[in-house]
Amino acid sequence: MALGQSAGERAGPTIVTCNPLMEQFVRDIVPDCRIPPIWDAVDPLAMLREQAGDARLAVSFGGFPFDAAMIDTLPSLEFVQLIGAGFDGLDTAALARRGIPFANAGNANCADVADYAMSMALALRRDLFSADDWVRSGRWQRDGRPPIRRSFSSDRAGIIGLGNIGQAVARRLAGFGISVAWWGPREKAGEPLQRARSALALAEWASILFVCCPATSDTHNLIDANILDALGSNGLLVTVARGSVTDEDALLEALREGRLGGAGLDVFWQEPTPPERWAGIPNVILSPHHAGVSMESMARSSEVVAENIRRFYAGEDLKFLIK
Amino acid sequence: MALGQSAGERAGPTIVTCNPLMEQFVRDIVPDCRIPPIWDAVDPLAMLREQAGDARLAVSFGGFPFDAAMIDTLPSLEFVQLIGAGFDGLDTAALARRGIPFANAGNANCADVADYAMSMALALRRDLFSADDWVRSGRWQRDGRPPIRRSFSSDRAGIIGLGNIGQAVARRLAGFGISVAWWGPREKAGEPLQRARSALALAEWASILFVCCPATSDTHNLIDANILDALGSNGLLVTVARGSVTDEDALLEALREGRLGGAGLDVFWQEPTPPERWAGIPNVILSPHHAGVSMESMARSSEVVAENIRRFYAGEDLKFLIK
Repeated sequence: MALGQSAGERAGPTIVTCNPLMEQFVRDIVPDCRIPPIWDAVDPLAMLREQAGDARLAVSFGGFPFDAAMIDTLPSLEFVQLIGAGFDGLDTAALARRGIPFANAGNANCADVADYAMSMALALRRDLFSADDWVRSGRWQRDGRPPIRRSFSSDRAGIIGLGNIGQAVARRLAGFGISVAWWGPREKAGEPLQRARSALALAEWASILFVCCPATSDTHNLIDANILDALGSNGLLVTVARGSVTDEDALLEALREGRLGGAGLDVFWQEPTPPERWAGIPNVILSPHHAGVSMESMARSSEVVAENIRRFYAGEDLKFLIK
Repeated sequence: MALGQSAGERAGPTIVTCNPLMEQFVRDIVPDCRIPPIWDAVDPLAMLREQAGDARLAVSFGGFPFDAAMIDTLPSLEFVQLIGAGFDGLDTAALARRGIPFANAGNANCADVADYAMSMALALRRDLFSADDWVRSGRWQRDGRPPIRRSFSSDRAGIIGLGNIGQAVARRLAGFGISVAWWGPREKAGEPLQRARSALALAEWASILFVCCPATSDTHNLIDANILDALGSNGLLVTVARGSVTDEDALLEALREGRLGGAGLDVFWQEPTPPERWAGIPNVILSPHHAGVSMESMARSSEVVAENIRRFYAGEDLKFLIK
């Protein structure tokens, strides 16, 4: 096993990560590290037990499974660094039991995610896909202008989760002159935007709901049939969180029945989402979970993670710890 | 001819306008007015001569022809009110010769036009149409994530024409934290945004160019091959002005050859634009000249125009006069 052997010969620290793309990412930052190739292993836990007993650091990506069994196999683990914003694949309870901190990549990709959320909201409200189709199919010539629709400027935007991404969405919305409010489980001291008393109250008030919260047990299926009905037939749902935050069956039904106006989805229950699941569903923009992916955000994320790894091995204070 | 007869029986002022949609718009504002139905006339000029000798007011829409022959046929004409922002169909020189002022609908639709320009820019840069197609065609399942592309946050936005619409685009861009500059023929006192020394210099600096200037003889084919090449293979053109401002043949060639990154077009040389003209041209979003059209902007425009018409007949100062 060439990869394992060459890893064994290196002199640097052992680092745990879970797939070849991540391995390359980590090796660019810590060139001499040892990385057990658990993605090739028949029994990944056995490989960790044998080769990662001294691993003090794991580097993972939010959606990848990093569960209690893996964590419990690593007796020297002191810190888990994530390369995105999310941490839904990580068993945070198992970490907490051992007092192991974890950090994400801070706001490395939040501008991209917020830009993407805005692009989906505007394209949905101003019906950009239909407009393009109207011209290309010759309907402009045959039937004249398309039906007159609502403006974006009379929308009210609600933001679920006012973390780095939610705040970046709020900054962008400010330039459009529309009303913005938010909901999250905790008040934010000094936050000028109005906080709704619940997610449902926010959906009742808003005509566009931006879902920007982390995927946790508290937010599982948070966007349910009640919230979709509160948004209503003119309402738009834009989600750049994780698929598990939305009750996707309820969403499909609401869109199919016209009880919800439209949806922009970068995330799904199952990824990749089967395309046949969305065939014939009106007013939905689908995206392959890449709102936060750009050349620039990858470079920024790499810098942020490299800096935190340097701090970790130097014994300095870590940045972007998740409380 | 029922319409002509009923118009003749009305007691109110004679108003000139050029199509049935405009007639309805004007009649909602001045119910008892007489409107010669020139759109039904074999010889519209003859009808104007016979039935509109006393017309002091004309109401038109920017793109509709309102030429010197029509203007010269109306001896009592004192004022032309437009219901949109543009005035390219109006022979402003013929008006100027007789000292007849004209006004547009001010900023009634500028929020919509700016929202639409932003929606095209974001959809182009973040490749929203390809993302949707990537999921729907099953490529996410077969090939994984799409290629990593540029972010919007590293763009530099140039605005050609900093009138109501250009300023509304600038306000929206401010929230995205990207650099913005502009060009127009005249300095604007107190404007904090940097003004480029020419349209070409702006295109050399910018990676997205928003075209928001009026269509005049000065701006005819302003966006030419030089400007498109200055924008370059990563550059995006978004135009919500008029088709005549862009050298459309040069644009087609630049897109076909990959010398320009992409274009979002709400306006065309010929409207409706023939769809076959755009078949196979990459990275272009087409839209049937409706950036400024929404239920809200139609209502606002109607209010603004109604108020100016009231002022006109009351002898009060007119609003939104074009200098």
